[in-house]
Amino acid sequence: MNLAITDVRLTPILVADPPLLNTQGVHQPYTPRLIVEVVTADGVTGLGETYGDTKYLELARPFAERLKGRQVSDLNGLFTLADQVAVDAARVENAVDVGGLRGVQTADKLRLSVVSAFEVACLDALGKTLGLPVHALLGGKVRDAVEYSAYLFYKWAGHPEGVACEKDDWGAAVDPAGVVEQARRFTERYGFTSFKLKGGVFPPDEEIAAVRALAEAFPGHPLRLDPNGAWSLETSLKVARELGDVLEYLEDPALGIPAMAEVAERTGVPLATNMCVTTFAEIKEAFTRGAVQVVLSDHHYWGGLRNTQQLAAVCRTFGVGVSMHSNTHLGISLAAMTHVAATVPNLHHACDSHYPWQSEDVLTERLAFEGGKVPVSDAPGLGVELDRERLAALHRRWLDDDGALRDRDDAAAMRVADPEWVTPSMPRW
Amino acid sequence: MNLAITDVRLTPILVADPPLLNTQGVHQPYTPRLIVEVVTADGVTGLGETYGDTKYLELARPFAERLKGRQVSDLNGLFTLADQVAVDAARVENAVDVGGLRGVQTADKLRLSVVSAFEVACLDALGKTLGLPVHALLGGKVRDAVEYSAYLFYKWAGHPEGVACEKDDWGAAVDPAGVVEQARRFTERYGFTSFKLKGGVFPPDEEIAAVRALAEAFPGHPLRLDPNGAWSLETSLKVARELGDVLEYLEDPALGIPAMAEVAERTGVPLATNMCVTTFAEIKEAFTRGAVQVVLSDHHYWGGLRNTQQLAAVCRTFGVGVSMHSNTHLGISLAAMTHVAATVPNLHHACDSHYPWQSEDVLTERLAFEGGKVPVSDAPGLGVELDRERLAALHRRWLDDDGALRDRDDAAAMRVADPEWVTPSMPRW
Repeated sequence: MNLAITDVRLTPILVADPPLLNTQGVHQPYTPRLIVEVVTADGVTGLGETYGDTKYLELARPFAERLKGRQVSDLNGLFTLADQVAVDAARVENAVDVGGLRGVQTADKLRLSVVSAFEVACLDALGKTLGLPVHALLGGKVRDAVEYSAYLFYKWAGHPEGVACEKDDWGAAVDPAGVVEQARRFTERYGFTSFKLKGGVFPPDEEIAAVRALAEAFPGHPLRLDPNGAWSLETSLKVARELGDVLEYLEDPALGIPAMAEVAERTGVPLATNMCVTTFAEIKEAFTRGAVQVVLSDHHYWGGLRNTQQLAAVCRTFGVGVSMHSNTHLGISLAAMTHVAATVPNLHHACDSHYPWQSEDVLTERLAFEGGKVPVSDAPGLGVELDRERLAALHRRWLDDDGALRDRDDAAAMRVADPEWVTPSMPRW
Repeated sequence: MNLAITDVRLTPILVADPPLLNTQGVHQPYTPRLIVEVVTADGVTGLGETYGDTKYLELARPFAERLKGRQVSDLNGLFTLADQVAVDAARVENAVDVGGLRGVQTADKLRLSVVSAFEVACLDALGKTLGLPVHALLGGKVRDAVEYSAYLFYKWAGHPEGVACEKDDWGAAVDPAGVVEQARRFTERYGFTSFKLKGGVFPPDEEIAAVRALAEAFPGHPLRLDPNGAWSLETSLKVARELGDVLEYLEDPALGIPAMAEVAERTGVPLATNMCVTTFAEIKEAFTRGAVQVVLSDHHYWGGLRNTQQLAAVCRTFGVGVSMHSNTHLGISLAAMTHVAATVPNLHHACDSHYPWQSEDVLTERLAFEGGKVPVSDAPGLGVELDRERLAALHRRWLDDDGALRDRDDAAAMRVADPEWVTPSMPRW
């Protein structure tokens, strides 16, 4: 058994993305992801996946070089290694990052987002070598399937005319009836029983009406609304009060710890976040002030699966809930999320996943939701297999791109439909 | 490869202990420990060790029965299993526990103390099966050796006359000169450069004088004083102020979060603890109030090596230091401590260990300190081997005992020398 890393392959790709709306704009027709392959001396290949925007690629390349010769079991050492790779902090902190949808931007967080892909790839390779599933490398599963929520979006029927894109069959959803229709389709196709609506798109009253319509159509089901911090404190208080009786939680109504803490304290509605707390450095103040009741971990920005377990431990210690956030991702990341989620005892909310929105993947076989859940694989490693032809085709799309889509920019995509569109300043309402 | 557990062996033993003094009394001539062996279907045996008092044994037996048939890789499941084993909470909470030297007594903590031995044994067996050291199962070492401190005790030259015991060659230490002499011997024998004095034995002024003598004899070396909560708030403030210039930290000067928080706030001297915070449930209030600056983890009561890593993550998140506590233990636990300590990035203080005080062990080869450090083993599992003859001999001693020594009771041991001795009520000074 030789666990030494002999090769690391980085493949940036562009994957089709439907015209999903959020407060910053609309998803571009293709979104960048980075596929990581770590190859050991035994010829075992481990897979990882993370954001594919330029700044992630720029950091992943020198990181990959330094990885060679190290052991795939040396997971703690990845963080030491990451610290050694230079990052232009000023550039990172001023870079376009989907208008802050991913929370605070720091050099450390960028490093962790890159580390996460290598950590998952190392775990996959280690598991395959040892004959153990990734969850066993994380201490073993405490559940056999992981529950996901339906991730509802306001959306157009298609990308603007003239834009090269793949078609989707979800149709438009721009009002309560459309949202309910989309939710029904989610339950029929995947069996989801929890619903999250991405808000911050229309004036709050319209979104309140959409959530009310969901509550009526699916009485008693957990509902969530996430405007990505688009609301003022006053609007947040108003929406929390109006929907408090039907919401499982309200996600990031306003930006910043003080506003979140005030909404939580004054309304008693649990607040979830993937913007207010996205790094360990933000936890102390947020938890001490009671600003968040549920942290939605994204293993990409928290630095991998083991850091996600540590985050869950911190949350458990402070009586804060934990679940999982999702940005556009493919099956490698869904498998990774499922393995780690299976090991977290205090996971009491269905996880988010964009996966149903992604018609393309780089796997030979897509992961499937059964009754709203992904079964936890007991196969060695992540339990997924790379489809090299698909990977090559999606990489070709990235190579062919003139650079316009290599950095996700939802406001730019919106300007294709509405040339007057400017990135909204927050709070928008 | 078959990771199923086919047999579990529990061997209670009594090991020789020198007459070390603390605020509750004196160590008995023999102290109980429990040695755990987990055997897999492949015939691999993993070793673990924990407290051996009756209440631990009573819980370990049904736990061991339930372990059979499970996988040694199913570490998260150990906690679920522990919850299923009935504990008489009222009895635990009122039981003798060395007068509170181990912190709060709860059924959950008792469970974790038992789980820890099984977790370590499972990790040892898993590592041996996979050909990986335990530190690799914990994500990999970030240092090649773990630093320990000299654990200085006031002590008598020998146990009271007439008491059956093993002799030790450390001599008496009941004043500053004796403490300094003991410290010198520790540096000569083991190369330690940090010193911790177990206090709470003599009036505070005498202990202040001992620490001053250490500071003079070992200028610039990290010094610690630990009276096990024997002081009032006022005394704690006085000692902290008098020794603040030479102490790396003061350990558990007073009992309870409010007193600790006040000492920390009013003196600025960092406070360490293995009494104020010994469970995850105690963290929130203690950290929020700034009651402790360094948590001394004891993997036995925190529930094992992976929980210790989680504790370290919580501490890191809240800017609280972390190091390791030690009660009387043998080489299996020292190896376990060393493996986990090697993986904790934020371990910035030398760990405590009673190991040099233990002349007896159950290993074929004792672990050695080199320059105050224990090298991290890269052999599969813990890297230690059981000496079955030694184990049998120490178990025989346990069998032959009439019950007097099967539960550690430092006050009872003190009454042999001083029939008038009563367990001091706290604060003692």
